[in-house]
Parts: sequence; C-alpha cells; structure tokens
Amino acid sequence: MIQRPRGTRDFGPAEMAKRRKVEQAMRDACARFGFGEVVTPTFEHSELFTLRSGQGIIDEMYVFKDKGDREMALRPEITAAVIRFYVNEMSTMPKPLKLYYLGNCFRYENPQSGRYREFFQIGAELIGTKTPETDAEIIALAVNCIRSAGLENFVVRIGHIGILKSLVKDQIKDEATAAEILRMLDKEDFDAMGDVFDAKALPRGLFDKIVSIADIKGGIDELNNLEDSDATRHLREVFDVLKLYGIEECQVDLGIVRGLDYYSGMVFEVDAPRLGAEKQILGGGSYTLSELFGGEPVFSTGFAIGIDRVVLAVEAEGPIKTPAPLDAYVIPAKDDMRKYAFGIVARLRSQGLKADVDIMRRNLSKNLKYAASVGASYAIIVGNEEMAKRSVTLRDMKTGKQQVVLVDEVGSAIIGSSK
Amino acid sequence: MIQRPRGTRDFGPAEMAKRRKVEQAMRDACARFGFGEVVTPTFEHSELFTLRSGQGIIDEMYVFKDKGDREMALRPEITAAVIRFYVNEMSTMPKPLKLYYLGNCFRYENPQSGRYREFFQIGAELIGTKTPETDAEIIALAVNCIRSAGLENFVVRIGHIGILKSLVKDQIKDEATAAEILRMLDKEDFDAMGDVFDAKALPRGLFDKIVSIADIKGGIDELNNLEDSDATRHLREVFDVLKLYGIEECQVDLGIVRGLDYYSGMVFEVDAPRLGAEKQILGGGSYTLSELFGGEPVFSTGFAIGIDRVVLAVEAEGPIKTPAPLDAYVIPAKDDMRKYAFGIVARLRSQGLKADVDIMRRNLSKNLKYAASVGASYAIIVGNEEMAKRSVTLRDMKTGKQQVVLVDEVGSAIIGSSK
Repeated sequence: MIQRPRGTRDFGPAEMAKRRKVEQAMRDACARFGFGEVVTPTFEHSELFTLRSGQGIIDEMYVFKDKGDREMALRPEITAAVIRFYVNEMSTMPKPLKLYYLGNCFRYENPQSGRYREFFQIGAELIGTKTPETDAEIIALAVNCIRSAGLENFVVRIGHIGILKSLVKDQIKDEATAAEILRMLDKEDFDAMGDVFDAKALPRGLFDKIVSIADIKGGIDELNNLEDSDATRHLREVFDVLKLYGIEECQVDLGIVRGLDYYSGMVFEVDAPRLGAEKQILGGGSYTLSELFGGEPVFSTGFAIGIDRVVLAVEAEGPIKTPAPLDAYVIPAKDDMRKYAFGIVARLRSQGLKADVDIMRRNLSKNLKYAASVGASYAIIVGNEEMAKRSVTLRDMKTGKQQVVLVDEVGSAIIGSSK
Repeated sequence: MIQRPRGTRDFGPAEMAKRRKVEQAMRDACARFGFGEVVTPTFEHSELFTLRSGQGIIDEMYVFKDKGDREMALRPEITAAVIRFYVNEMSTMPKPLKLYYLGNCFRYENPQSGRYREFFQIGAELIGTKTPETDAEIIALAVNCIRSAGLENFVVRIGHIGILKSLVKDQIKDEATAAEILRMLDKEDFDAMGDVFDAKALPRGLFDKIVSIADIKGGIDELNNLEDSDATRHLREVFDVLKLYGIEECQVDLGIVRGLDYYSGMVFEVDAPRLGAEKQILGGGSYTLSELFGGEPVFSTGFAIGIDRVVLAVEAEGPIKTPAPLDAYVIPAKDDMRKYAFGIVARLRSQGLKADVDIMRRNLSKNLKYAASVGASYAIIVGNEEMAKRSVTLRDMKTGKQQVVLVDEVGSAIIGSSK
C-alpha cells in the first residue's frame, strides 16, 4: 500500500464537515469586519520567506527548483505572500486595505504531537495605518473569529515590543551589544542574557528591570507600574477602543517579546488553555514588511490563527455539531419501482435536500441498513401499492416511525420536520 | 520587487468573491447528491501518480525529496490521492462511498493561455459499484454542479471505451499490434494508425470501422448504427436513468478514446463552447485504480471539473453577481463622536452585517470618498446633533439619499432595504 507522506493528514467527510463549519464561521467574521479574501500561490520564490524570517528558515521549508532553476519554497506562512501581492498590485488601492486569507502552510520539521508538516491557517492583514484603532480592530476581529468558531475559553494577551526595545536601545549605547541582548530577549533566553550582562559588566539594575517588565501581566492598570511612553499610551488607547467594541477579556502581557526584528509595535497572542503545552492558537501584531519586498513603507497589523488547534480546542469543550450528512435515502421496494425512485430523488435535490438513491439494486432490508450506516435522517420507500396512489412511505430513521406521504409532499414533509 | 512564481496567480477580493460563489454552488450540489468532502495532502509520494499515469508524468510534476530522501510530488490531480485514502482507511466502509474534493493541483509545464502551473479542481468519486445507475448518478452530479455554477451553455458528451477496445482486441489477434493500435487511438492519431494498418497489412475495412465508430456523435439513437454489445446496452441504460433524472441534454460521443489504459467503461466530457480551443471543462468516467495502490479491486466512477475554466465560461455568459463587499461604513463626523462609532459598528456586525468604521481619523468628505471606493452600500454618519437624540444619518451610497435613523434601528433599516 502507498501511504500518505509522513506528517500529513487525510480528512474524511465527518472531520471535514466539522472543519468547514469552524472555517466558515471564521470567514463570516472576517466578512462582517469588512475584510476581503485573497488567495496567493502555494509556493513562492524562497527569498520571500528568507527576507522576512532570515536564512535559518530554509531548513524548515520544502524547497525545490523551478524549470528556470529558481529556488521555490512551499509557503511556511501566508503574510509574506499577502504583502508581496500588495506591493506588486495593490499598493495604489484606497487605504486602509483589509485582507484575509485561509490556506495551507508547510513546515519541514520532524512531526510531533499536534504539529503537522501541512497545516492550515486563517489570517488577516490590515494595511495602511498605525492608529490604536487599527490594532484594536485587528484584535477585535481575532476575538470575533475565535468566538464565532465556537470557542468559549481563551485568553487574549496584548503587549508592545516597543517598551523593551526602546529601553535596551536607550540604555545600552553599544549597538552590537544592544542587538545581542534583543536577540536573547527574542528567544526569551534570560539566562544567556544574564551572562552577557556579567561579561560586559552592564548594570544589573537594567537586567532586573528588563526581567520585571517582561513579567508584567494582567489588567491594563498593570501599566501604572511603568513610566508613561508612546508605547504605554498606545496600549491604553487600544484597550479603550476594545472596550467600546465590547471586548473586555484582554490582558496586558509585556512578556510577548518574540519576533522583535519583525514586529514594530503592538503584539498579541491568544491561548486556549485546554490544549496544554501547544495552547497558543493565534499570534499577531503590527509590523512593516513591504519595503523588504521593494515597496514603499506601509504600516500593517495582522494575525494568523492555527485552524487545526482551534478545531482541537473547540472539540475539547464539546462536540462540534454538524447537520446529518443525508436528509433522505430513496429505496425502491421492488425492481419495477426503480424508475420512480430516480425522479423522486431528483426532485428532493432540486428542493435543496441532501438526498440519495439506491444504485446497487439491493433489497429493502439491505438498503435500510445502508441508510442507517450513512446517517440518513429519513428513508423513502417506493412501494407498488403506495405509488399507485402517488405516495411513498417516509421512515424516520431515528424513531423507526413510518407514514405514507404523497410524492408531491414528501420533500416539504422532510423540510418541515427539521425546523 | 519580488514577483510571484511564473505561471501562478494572485487573486484579489473581487475575484475571490466570484470564485467562492461558483465553488460554493458546486459544493452544495455535491452535498445534495449525498457526497461528503475529503481533503488529502498537497504533496504525495510521487509513485502514487506514476503508478496511475506512467513515468512520463514525472516531467510534468513538481518533484522534491523528503527529509527521508523519498521522492515527493505536488499533486497533478486528486483522484489518485482519494483512492489511496480509500485503500488505506476507508475500504471497509459501507458501499457505495460518495466522496468529493475541491483543491489545488500543479502542472510543471510552460505556462500558456488559460493554463496555469497551479490550478483548481472540484471532483467526485463514487466507489463500490458499476451499474448504469452509478454512471448516471455521476453524470447527473456533474451536470448539476455546472448548472449550479451558473453556466447555461455546455455540451455533455458520453462514450464508452469498451466499444473500440473490444473491437480492436477481437479483430487483431497479435497482442503487441493490438496494444500499438490502442495507444494510437488513445492519442487520436488516426494517421499513424493508418500507417500501422498498411505496414502490417491489416484489413482496411477494420480501419474504416474504427474511424467510423470514433465518429459516432449525437443522440442515443446513433447507437442503432452499431451491433448490440454489453457496452451499448450499458450506455442506453445510462441515458434511460439520466432521462428519469430529468437530464436530457447529453449526447453520445464514441470519439472519447483518451485514457484507454485508465478508464474501464463509460467516459464523458463536458465542453463550454464559448471558451474556444480550451473549451473542455470536465473529464470523467468509470475506472479501477485501487488494486494499483495495493487495495482490493473496486469499481469507481468519477469526474474532475476545472474550476478556473468554469469561472471563465460563466463570466463569458455574463457578469457573476456578488453581494456588496460592505453593507455599511461608519463615519464619526467629529473627533468626539469617535467613541460612539465603535459601538455602532460592533452592533451592526453582531447583527450579521458587513460593517466597517473609520480607523484613520479622516474628515467626513475623505471618509465618504473611501466608503464609495470600497463599494459600501451605506455610510452611517455619526454627528453631534443626531447623537444627542441617539440617532445617526444613514446615507445610501448609490442614490446619495440621506435619512436620520435611531441608532437602535439603523441595522434593521439596512437589513430591510436589502430584501
């Protein structure tokens, strides 16, 4: 047997029904917020991703050569492609530009629990402005996506990397050392940072201050422990707008210091605590990227949600309910009834019902067994006596209750019962 | 500037709205026919595709090595993956199994008009039976997908490769020669076939008969020109069931002889004549594939529709109508009105409306210009005087007509107007 590639997945109909429901709910949230969908290629010139994330990402990507011998990569994320699209074709469109995407991404690492080599993300990019309202709008959309997906228990943590970044740059005049410290902050490696402080005889008070700021977590009032700055004022305004949007569950977390090279201001993450170690379901923030790709500088804010983890998190709270896969299964009771069965199923389908018909010429009892196994809500039995009166037997597959219904009315009987 | 890879496309919001509408209509058709969605990985072991299509396909695929040094390929089609999934995990499920997919495929050829290196297909596979009803069901679904997509002018041509295949095998006793003739038939290269007939001194009457059968096109009565066989009886029954389904626009076309190695019985194609040379929008038929992948033999019938071409064909008949991208754009007339604007937009969104709000702190006239440029149906102007009475100004962006409406009623006013 040929197996699927390691670290990838096949999804069957029951799983897809749940995933599409969650995805559609998040798509609808994006549309309500005025975001329009974009789709970009599954592979890109690999430099698109190394420009954003550094050469190190090459080892984590699926890379191959094009016919023109150019290096291509299966996309590890979609933000870079959206901004490339913006730079190439959308830079003159009215601002702000509100774009969302939903697609597959690829990660060339050894598969581990809850992490796959092909995974799915939905994300949004708001291009053209850097007001606190912009950040609040993106956070509000993220919260709405997650709520719409059906998740009840999640934590939104909002920080601002400008606070620690400007502190380090102000206090450490040697640029190389400041950059080294920021890299360690980025990795949240406070031990290594302490060693650098010792080696370079930097003030221990500064180290303690950095650690204490990275430790600030809680309500917006936690910012009162810091001197005011552009960054703290910006964060306060973001929280003010979120409150006007009716979103009050957000926390401050100045410990979000990842992606210092990339993000330029507000950063935020969402966790689903029930998922344990792999609890982060969203990452985002404001950034500038277009000039890296040869465009004019432009402010952007965005996020990406891991769809796989959202689905897991929603299911951890309770089953995801989907409609029955089939409303009705039409069964000819005898061979000479077959000719009527096709007309009946065609009519049910034209009424918008999900309907199927025996195509294996089975007997009644095998057909009823099949109808039950595929989860049909009703069986419609086309018998000689009933058809003589233009009627069929409608059997409720859950209760086993049967009634004789006119052919002309069986569709509306099923539609009515599901209301 | 970094360009997108040659032969690929970026799709913006207006294009995606049209594509998603067409796709959703076809998805809904699949669901009404009782088909459940499956999703398989974007890349597979390349042998999956060479087993189905022969080594020649390697040159037409994007191929790369996995970390385990196994050869992978971006999928050129999805049927092989669905059957692999079936063999691996679904072979014990109740038959018939009705599966559909919608996804991207990759073709590593030089880009040409209307053909892309990444393209999109929707397809269905009906696994487990080979009755004429099965073929009719698949053809009926194909027709329903295309009709639901909004296409009015299309031609369904149905053939049966068993007719020519058995004629050649019966009449040409030398197996190597028969295989050679079939390969030429497969390529529709009748000139080369004539040369083989001359070289091997095969009866000219047989050549003429093959050509005349491949030329049979038209109503089902065209089959009267042939002697009866299992194949002609099967085709007649397929047409009988299609008629019971209310599908009467299908033609017989015994010239569909491509894929002789792969297809085993009924074959069909759909054309959209307005597309000119690239008019084929669907190909399908009955086949056996599972044993190639190590499974038990099982009969299957399926099709794949080229979504890109369907969208082109529908647009060739007239514009694809999509809803306005935005129902309402909320504009604070003065700075001190901003705080109300966010609450209003949040409420509109919670009512299911697509709504947006100024986040760039522009003045009224610039905001109205933006609302027009993004295609908002209404602007909602939040002014001091009106807000004093818990009201706003609702401006119809098409007509310019304005009315003052209570904040509590502005959402339902918009919803009511779109009915």
